[in-house]
Parts: sequence; C-alpha cells; structure tokens
Amino acid sequence: MTRKIDIFDTTLRDGEQSPGASMNTEEKLVIARQLLRLNVDVIEAGFPISSPGDFESVRKISQLAGYDATVAALTRAVEKDIVSAADALKFAKRPRIHTGIGVSESHMRDKLRLTPDEAIERAVAAVKCAKSYVDDVQFYAEDAGRSDYDFLVRMIQAVVDAGATVVNIPDTTGYSLPDEFGRRIKYLVDNVQGIDDVTIAVHCHNDLGMATALAMAGVANGARQIECTINGLGERAGNTAMEEVVMAIRMHERELDAHTDINTREFTKASRLVSTITGMNVQANKAIVGANAFAHSSGIHQDGVLKKRDTYEIIDPADVGAGESQIVLTARSGHAALKHRLEELGYEFNAEKLDELYEAFLNLADKKKEVYDEDLESLVNERDREETALYSLEAVQVSCGFPLKPTATVTIKDPQGASVTQCVWGTGPVDAAYKAVDAIVGLDADLSEFSVQSVTRGIDALGEVTVRVKAVNGEVYTGRGADGDIIVSATKAYLNALNRLLSKSL
Amino acid sequence: MTRKIDIFDTTLRDGEQSPGASMNTEEKLVIARQLLRLNVDVIEAGFPISSPGDFESVRKISQLAGYDATVAALTRAVEKDIVSAADALKFAKRPRIHTGIGVSESHMRDKLRLTPDEAIERAVAAVKCAKSYVDDVQFYAEDAGRSDYDFLVRMIQAVVDAGATVVNIPDTTGYSLPDEFGRRIKYLVDNVQGIDDVTIAVHCHNDLGMATALAMAGVANGARQIECTINGLGERAGNTAMEEVVMAIRMHERELDAHTDINTREFTKASRLVSTITGMNVQANKAIVGANAFAHSSGIHQDGVLKKRDTYEIIDPADVGAGESQIVLTARSGHAALKHRLEELGYEFNAEKLDELYEAFLNLADKKKEVYDEDLESLVNERDREETALYSLEAVQVSCGFPLKPTATVTIKDPQGASVTQCVWGTGPVDAAYKAVDAIVGLDADLSEFSVQSVTRGIDALGEVTVRVKAVNGEVYTGRGADGDIIVSATKAYLNALNRLLSKSL
Repeated sequence: MTRKIDIFDTTLRDGEQSPGASMNTEEKLVIARQLLRLNVDVIEAGFPISSPGDFESVRKISQLAGYDATVAALTRAVEKDIVSAADALKFAKRPRIHTGIGVSESHMRDKLRLTPDEAIERAVAAVKCAKSYVDDVQFYAEDAGRSDYDFLVRMIQAVVDAGATVVNIPDTTGYSLPDEFGRRIKYLVDNVQGIDDVTIAVHCHNDLGMATALAMAGVANGARQIECTINGLGERAGNTAMEEVVMAIRMHERELDAHTDINTREFTKASRLVSTITGMNVQANKAIVGANAFAHSSGIHQDGVLKKRDTYEIIDPADVGAGESQIVLTARSGHAALKHRLEELGYEFNAEKLDELYEAFLNLADKKKEVYDEDLESLVNERDREETALYSLEAVQVSCGFPLKPTATVTIKDPQGASVTQCVWGTGPVDAAYKAVDAIVGLDADLSEFSVQSVTRGIDALGEVTVRVKAVNGEVYTGRGADGDIIVSATKAYLNALNRLLSKSL
Repeated sequence: MTRKIDIFDTTLRDGEQSPGASMNTEEKLVIARQLLRLNVDVIEAGFPISSPGDFESVRKISQLAGYDATVAALTRAVEKDIVSAADALKFAKRPRIHTGIGVSESHMRDKLRLTPDEAIERAVAAVKCAKSYVDDVQFYAEDAGRSDYDFLVRMIQAVVDAGATVVNIPDTTGYSLPDEFGRRIKYLVDNVQGIDDVTIAVHCHNDLGMATALAMAGVANGARQIECTINGLGERAGNTAMEEVVMAIRMHERELDAHTDINTREFTKASRLVSTITGMNVQANKAIVGANAFAHSSGIHQDGVLKKRDTYEIIDPADVGAGESQIVLTARSGHAALKHRLEELGYEFNAEKLDELYEAFLNLADKKKEVYDEDLESLVNERDREETALYSLEAVQVSCGFPLKPTATVTIKDPQGASVTQCVWGTGPVDAAYKAVDAIVGLDADLSEFSVQSVTRGIDALGEVTVRVKAVNGEVYTGRGADGDIIVSATKAYLNALNRLLSKSL
C-alpha cells in the first residue's frame, strides 16, 4: 500500500478570498456537501473571527450529519481568534484549529514587527492555547517559501514540541521553484526531531503557474497533506487545484509512493458547482475540468486518438465525471423526482420551499424540453437570491435592436414595499436597464465586469449573468441572475450585486 | 551573463488547434505583429500542408517587414509536407522547418505502424530533405515524454548527425512529472554526442496542470528553447503559457543561469488580443494575466500589502503591463490620431478601410465618452467579420422582458443580395433572434456555447459575444460579434459562426 495523502480543501476559506467570490452560509453548505461527496479528508470551513458570517458557516458545516471529514477553522496566533474558532467548531465530530504566524524576514519585520524569537514564542503560545480546546492542531508557517531554512527548522521544532499534529508549509507568494520547495520540505524531514509523528502539509499559490507542481514536489519529499481548492480558486492567481493534484498523484502513484482517497468522478460536478456559486468561470483550457480538457481538433491528433485513445489521452474523461451531464427531468417529472434529484445534488429543503421550487421548475420545464442538473442548480441559487433581496425586480420591459434606440422600463419593489418604475434609454438594452435600476436604487457603484454563460447547451438555454460592481471603498461585489431571458438575467444580476453591497454596508 | 533561453511561440499553430480557436490569415497577422512586439525569438506560423489557409498565413507572416524573429513551419516527416513548408517560408528572413515523428512505443506502433529503426530512418530522411531547403531545421520527437530513454538518445543522435539545429523534446500528453522530465533532458545532454552544438527545446502540455513547471525543469537541465503560447492556449488543456514561464525565469534568473529577451510589458495586451481574437477567455485566477492575478481581498493580506508590497506580491503588475489600459480617444480625436493608435496596436489599413473605420469609431465615440484600445480592437475585428460574410445582418428588432413574450424580428441579406425578414418568439430575446436567423439561413447546427464579455469597463461598455456552434460533422465553429447592444452582438456572433461554417463547407 502506498502512502495516503490527505486532501485538505480550502475552497471555503482561501478560495472565498478571491475578489468577488464571497459566499453566504447556505452557499457554503452546498459546497461542503459536495466536498463530502468528493471524500476530502479535511474541510477548512472558514476564519471564524473575521466575521459573524464566517463564524456561522464554520458552526453550520461542523454540524453536517453523517461524515468523517475533519473540519478546520483558521486563526491568527492570537488568543481571541483561537477562542472563536474553538467555539465555532464546538459541534464538529473531528475539529481542527489551524493557527500560525509569518516566518519569513519580510513577514516578521514588515507585517508583524516581531523578532524571530518573539515569533516563535507567539507560535508556541498559540499552539498550546489551541491544544487546550482540541487535540488536532495544525500550524501554518506563513511565507515559509521565502524563510531561512534553519529558522524554519527552529520554528517547526518548537510547534511540534508544543503539540502541533500537522505542520503546514505554505509557499504564500507562489514564488518558489518546485525543486527548491521540495528541498525545503526534505530539510524539515531531515532536521526536525519527531517530524515522523506529525503530518507535513503543503499550501501553494499559483502566481507563476506552478501551484500543482509545487504541491507535487512537496509530496515527493515527504509531505502527507495537500491544501487545495476546487478550480484552483484563491487569492490572486489562486491555489493548487484539487482536481489537478489528485489526478497527477493518481497517474504517478507508484513513483511517488502515494495515493488519495478522493472520489474523482465528482470533479466535474464540483467544478461546475463552485463556478456557478462564486461566479468565477473556468477557462476552456483548464486542466482536468476545462471544457476542452479532453477535446482534440487537429487532424493529426484526431487520427491518433481514433487509432488508440492512449496515443494522446492519458485520463479517461469518465474518471473525472466529464460528459456525464444528463437529462434528468422534464415537464412530466413529479414533485418526488425533483426532491430526489435535488438531494442527490446536495440540497435539502423544507416542504414549503420545495413547493416553490417545483413551481419554478415547471415554469422552466415548460419553456425548455430538457432540464439538466445545471438548470436545477441555477434555479435554486436564483430563489436564494430573491429571498434575501432588499430591492426586488417586479418587471422589466425592453425594446432594442438595430437601427433602434434601446429603451428599458424597470419596476422594482423597494425595501419599504413600494413599487417604483423608471424608463431610460441607453447604449444597449443592458445599459438602459442598468440605468433604470440606478435611477431607482440611487447607489454610486462601478460596473467592473459583466459576463454571461449559458448554463446548459442548446439554443433555449438558461442564461446566467455574472456581474461585478465596485463600491466607492474599492470592495467588489458579485451578483448573479438566471433566466431564460438574458435581459432579465442581467437586470437580476445587477440588482443582486447592489443588494449584496447594501446589506454589507447596513 | 546568464544563458539566453529562446522563446518559440506556437500560438498560431498549436494554440490554433484548440477546438473553436481557429483564426483567419488577417487575425494571425495581427497576433504575429504582437509577438514581434513581445520580441519572441521564433514564431511558429502554421502547418502549411494542412490547408491553403495555413499555407497562406505562413507565407504572409514570413513577409512581415522589419523583424529579426525566425519563422517556423510545421511538417510531418513526409516529403510533400516539407516541400510545402519550404515554399511557404520562401520569403522569410530566417526560415526554419520544424519536422518530426513519434518516438514512443504507443506512437510508433499504434499510430505510425513503424518499427523503431524505420522511424529513425524516416526522421533522418526528413531532416536531410528539410536541410536541402533551409539551414535551420528543428526536429520534434513526438511523445518523447513517454519514450524509452535509450531509443530517444539513438533518435536524437541520428537527427543531430543528419544536421538538425534544434531538437524539440515534447511531453505530448502532459503526463510527466517535472523531475522525471528534467532527468530525460539531462540524459540527452549527457549521452548525445555533439548536443552542445544544437539547441534542446521543450514543448509541454498542461493536462495535469504542470506545463510551466515541466518547461522550467527542462531549462534547469539544459534546454535552451521553450515552446509556448499566449494564455497557454493549445490542444486539450493547452501548452506552457509564455507569460508564466518567462516571469518564472525572470524571478529565478540566477538559480537557473537563464534569461529571455521578452518584453514582458506587452503580456497583458498580448493576452487580451489573443483572447479577443480566439474567443478563448482567460479565467480570473490565471497566473500573470488573469483579472485577479494581482488582486487581494482578505483583510490579513491587504494589511500586509499596505505595509510593504513585497509581503505578498513578488511581481510588479506594471512589469507585465497590467492596469495600463488607458483612455486613448474620444469623439474629438481626429483621423490621424485613430490611424496612429491603430498602428501602435499593430493594424495597418489602406485609406479606404481607414475611412470606414473612422466612421465606425465616431459612431462608437458618440455613444461612449471614452474609447479604449480594447474597443478599437473589437471594432476592427467586427469590420473584418462583416466584410467576409456570406449572410449579413441588416436589422434586428427585439422586445422582451418579464412578464412579456420575447419577440425578435430579424432582416438578413442573403448571398444573392436579397433581404429576408423573419419574426419569431422564443424563451428569451437571444433565443428568439437565433430562431429567426435559423428560419432565414436554414442550417442545422447546435449552439454549444454562448458567452459575453464586456470589452471595457463601465456600464456603457461594448459587449462582445462569443458563440460556438457544432456542425453535423462534429466540427466546432466560433463566432463573435461586438456592439453596444448585447442582442445585436449576439445576433452578429451567431451569424458569424454560421458564415464560418458555411464558407468552410463550400
């Protein structure tokens, strides 16, 4: 049997730190259920001290029923963070506190303003504090990729002696070369006493496009846990993508003496779910889960592939659940069929909500002959958005084209319950509708991104619009809207972003 | 002085093999000019025997004035391919023929049906044949990543002895681990006689998300040329991304004893240009050129970055030309200003075409206060599409919204010059307009993807729609359309895809 490598998913923590990718608790629960279906070893559920929403998400994910995964919560090396994390993890079956401190010269001097000895002292105190609440304590040595080798050994030795069960070596800036990062892990294996009794984890960033290779170098040199996210989501250029690193290990199990317990057939679904919920699209040439990951077009290659699949393809698309999207429901599908399928997708609803969804489903099935999983997910997300809205869309009516003057009439119910209508013309129908919304809501925000993906295939597909607006303080809010009518989707998405901005600033 | 690493760009050859990313000659010339501004060492311009369009592109790129880059053309190890490549490269200042053959067991046995000795014989004959036309002959050992070490040495020795100046070691399936791939390059350096007098090149694929790390491992072990594409475009999950590998080398120049001569400040512009022309969008968390590559959102990180940029960011965004998009023109800008800016962007037009563009520009500047480079590029591409159209859009008129029945009236001029109008209702305005187009054009094709990107920021942005349609034979055609009115963009994009499909099947 080869070494078991633990998969530590941080989509809900580091992934959520992508600008515009923030999720509410309900959305995080949907992703957490999918992570459980993937069979990850650890879910990093959030950073409880950072906001009441994060605290609540960690608490709710800890209470998900019937799973074996460890639930981790992030803290700084600060007592109040640790107390908050312990509190949020109270109901977890296997709780883990993930605490740590910067270890590079730049982090200690410029950010923390601590001497190296003071940093070690703070780290040890944090680990001991966390240990007083839970057995499983993971320590992160922030910016370890740029730290002094011998100082890193001293730091890790100190936290291992203080009781850390997992030591996480992040390449925080995504600066390292794989070889060099591997040597660093090897140096710890060779020089920290008792290191065999703890798990070394690696957490890599993709700034130079090498996050997956960095994690692989870690594993080759003794790491037994990989921190990663679905679609490689995360700060800046993101983190190691779970789907890439898991498949790379699987293709090289023997050379690496390593395997994971991930259910890879869930990758395609997980990827789609995360991109739908965060509005962060995956490019076509993304490894494993991109639309073209298994597509060939050149004549030479097609010929080769026809002769023997193995000539060019090394992964069977079915192994990662690609191409498995199926027609599941039609207008004749009953209430029970919808409920069953939603449960399989990881959604659980009470009877009242289910009735509402069934009505929306019939409405959609009426327009589209075939309703796919993606359509259902989009529908559920749409309902969630409508429920939490301050301003809600009552009607939108557009006439546009060429040669015509695009004109939109929008009716919105404001938080006081009054219906307000405005009619505006613009450059195009979306511009006109957005100006009408602005005239009603009266908020000063910049539209910084606008994109549309068809949710499913075919000419009658549901269109999902993602917009990002930038508030005056520079914060970015993502809004999404789904409807068979792209102008309605677009108006809903914009209003959704403004609602999010407004509820944050309340 | 560190070793100079040659950058061999294959966006126009391997990149174009992405399903749906095919480009016409004019589009390829625009990208080639941008590659020259990046100062690449080699442009692989196409695969001349594969189609008259590819032949023409290689011929035209060879004739671009005032540059020093080598122009390469791909061939199989087949005489007629080589003759065609030599012919297409006739006017190149520095021509290179890129010929080769499969070297893995799977490729020789299943695809080529050759014994190893026969494969060597064919390779040597191809190199000698190419040498009779040009001095600079590059040999590719297809699927070298899975080949037998000693057979690979025999093959490379044979082609070096036959006069190859560059030997390209591709990891065709993207299967290798960086360490292993590096060892393979080292083995060639140690075992092929006279290898110091030729350049070893690496060509890596991204199937496991490690294309950049694989190329870096090649460089660390003796390779002096990297094959790559803008945005990592290419078959399946794509190739090594130029922007990633060049920045990785720059960050590690001393350790690697390596540098490139690339003008990195052109990366952001190059990325945008390639994604606009191919319709292959770049995800936000793409390294170096993604929208979030330099964006932070977590409180911890923001605080760190404010204290000292170096805490989390290792690349100055300005070094890759990020955030440099400027307002260049307004409605008051004259004809000369437009011409000058277009030239800076790499476009050259005759007086008549320029007049047309100026009119379109004024039209746009009238609607938008600020006209960006991206708007201009979009405008130029739009004009190109209109000129080559079989069917052209004369008018589209839409009314839609909620609660309304989306209805579209479309007028199209058919190839015989007749104006045909159809009025159809649908699920949404795009669905209605597309059904109206279908009713006029009468073609059986599947819409497989629909996406919209706003070209520039702001609520009045020009919307560029990309659609992919799948013909009955399974081939994918990309269509694009840009207009201030998203419904007009969408209709133009669909018609553009159908026009491409029709001209291909003529």
